[in-house]
Amino acid sequence: MKFKVQVDVSLRSGIADPAGATIERALPALGYEGVSGVSVGKTIRFTIEASDQEEAEAHAEDLCASFLINPVIEDATVTVEAGNGDL
Amino acid sequence: MKFKVQVDVSLRSGIADPAGATIERALPALGYEGVSGVSVGKTIRFTIEASDQEEAEAHAEDLCASFLINPVIEDATVTVEAGNGDL
Repeated sequence: MKFKVQVDVSLRSGIADPAGATIERALPALGYEGVSGVSVGKTIRFTIEASDQEEAEAHAEDLCASFLINPVIEDATVTVEAGNGDL
Repeated sequence: MKFKVQVDVSLRSGIADPAGATIERALPALGYEGVSGVSVGKTIRFTIEASDQEEAEAHAEDLCASFLINPVIEDATVTVEAGNGDL
């Protein structure tokens, strides 16, 4: 059975976010006022083969913690859904 | 009034995704089987100041189309929510 997985990766609070800071600094010069707290994260989407939802979640969390994110500076939210279409 | 905005940026279908392809190719060697269709996108979160939800949505879409994404190769989904906490 196939499951769609979405991993949202964001920087832990307190970790410098140069991409976000650059966007925030550039916006007023481009005419966009009133934007604050810009942060840039990653989203990784994939399809995983597993026998049930629990196995899919366990595999996805494991994969995420050991390979997809750097737990020292990043936090991740893993969402698993049945089906093999687009998440 | 403050609104939380989340912009999900993903590559248009047909556009090469080298980061996703590298993850997909590396996983079997690392002992993770059954993973396919890996794609890597970006998430940009920020807080915007606007008088109502419609204005916030219009500003966010405009900002997104003109500055945050490259519409030639990327698609974006903009989500606007009232409040200034974390999205």
